Amino acid sequence: MDYKIIQVKEDVLIENNQKAKEVRALLHKKHIFFLNVMASPGSGKTTLLCNLINRLKDEFKIGVMEADIDGDVDADRISKRTGVKAIQVHTSGACHLTAQMVEDAIKDFEIDDLDVLFLENIGNLVCPAEFDTGSNLNMMLLSVPEGHDKPLKYPLMFQVSNVAVITKIDTLPVFDFDFDKCEEYIHRRNQNAKVFKVSALKDEGVDKLADYLRELFRNR
Amino acid sequence: MDYKIIQVKEDVLIENNQKAKEVRALLHKKHIFFLNVMASPGSGKTTLLCNLINRLKDEFKIGVMEADIDGDVDADRISKRTGVKAIQVHTSGACHLTAQMVEDAIKDFEIDDLDVLFLENIGNLVCPAEFDTGSNLNMMLLSVPEGHDKPLKYPLMFQVSNVAVITKIDTLPVFDFDFDKCEEYIHRRNQNAKVFKVSALKDEGVDKLADYLRELFRNR
Repeated sequence: MDYKIIQVKEDVLIENNQKAKEVRALLHKKHIFFLNVMASPGSGKTTLLCNLINRLKDEFKIGVMEADIDGDVDADRISKRTGVKAIQVHTSGACHLTAQMVEDAIKDFEIDDLDVLFLENIGNLVCPAEFDTGSNLNMMLLSVPEGHDKPLKYPLMFQVSNVAVITKIDTLPVFDFDFDKCEEYIHRRNQNAKVFKVSALKDEGVDKLADYLRELFRNR
Repeated sequence: MDYKIIQVKEDVLIENNQKAKEVRALLHKKHIFFLNVMASPGSGKTTLLCNLINRLKDEFKIGVMEADIDGDVDADRISKRTGVKAIQVHTSGACHLTAQMVEDAIKDFEIDDLDVLFLENIGNLVCPAEFDTGSNLNMMLLSVPEGHDKPLKYPLMFQVSNVAVITKIDTLPVFDFDFDKCEEYIHRRNQNAKVFKVSALKDEGVDKLADYLRELFRNR
């Protein structure tokens, strides 16, 4: 990366961290739990979110921010499948969401009428890891088809994620994926990371993850 | 994205385009075909590259640049499986390769002894699309597990790619992937894009892609 862009990026990251603090303070004041979901393209974020929301929406008032470079498919899908309010945030080509974008998007919600806010970040294992969104928890998804070596290749993403969810475990018979190695690599990046295994499609393991999140949401 | 970073990024992109032209001119002078391979994490880039190189290495002198944020696994894998020289380029956390990084990495090869240079770019569908590497051809891979809707969500990547390769077609039975829709979406972004379907694991469709590349390499 060019020196000039590194320097500016540093300033931008400092500004972003400041804004993220403000977002976190605002949401804390309103007793809203903010969960940032990150992953590669096509790792099953939207499907898993729908399954989780349908398990949690009776107890909590939930809102969803769908970040995308282009397209409105996902916000629409989530609204239709869960009935909760989902808004689309376009990043105008950018590879990540900033805390400023989050602050702007929050205005589209009735903030006094929310318990939990989900953010589905841009499908990307690099840039979203650098930008604090103001979330209370970073949850990253790694799908079985992507391979168990990804924590070695995308260190920062695994380092900043409190929770790593291995998705699409129903496809294990067709892929060479080693859970133990994967877990070992994840803990090399973040020894406190919680690891879950799910198949949103077959509804396996989602209850356990929902239970874990429910506890966090209750103690928000 | 912050206005300040957009402005600097524009300057950086202009500089990068200039450097890419120089790289392209240098490689043209040396009769080297430069192929930039882009995709999401875990889409099967390395495996496909190995299969292609093993089909083409008797006719062409091939070199490989493996771009990664961290780790040296892939360069090693490619060297061992194909016998060609593969070097690892670390981007120090950056989400893409610049033309300057390519120019620097070229120095690690005996440039007068090369016909074809492959670049395996960072696993990312966003940032690498913005940075011209100086390549003669951009080839992007989309794996079946990622889903057929990706051209709608990552428009620039599909727009700048001359070739789109659908990978892991052996996993079709376990995924809901619509080839016709995918092809339609790809051509919406780039109506001249060539589309191939392969399973590197089962060795399906790789001959056809290798034949296509062979013709391009011969006419370099």
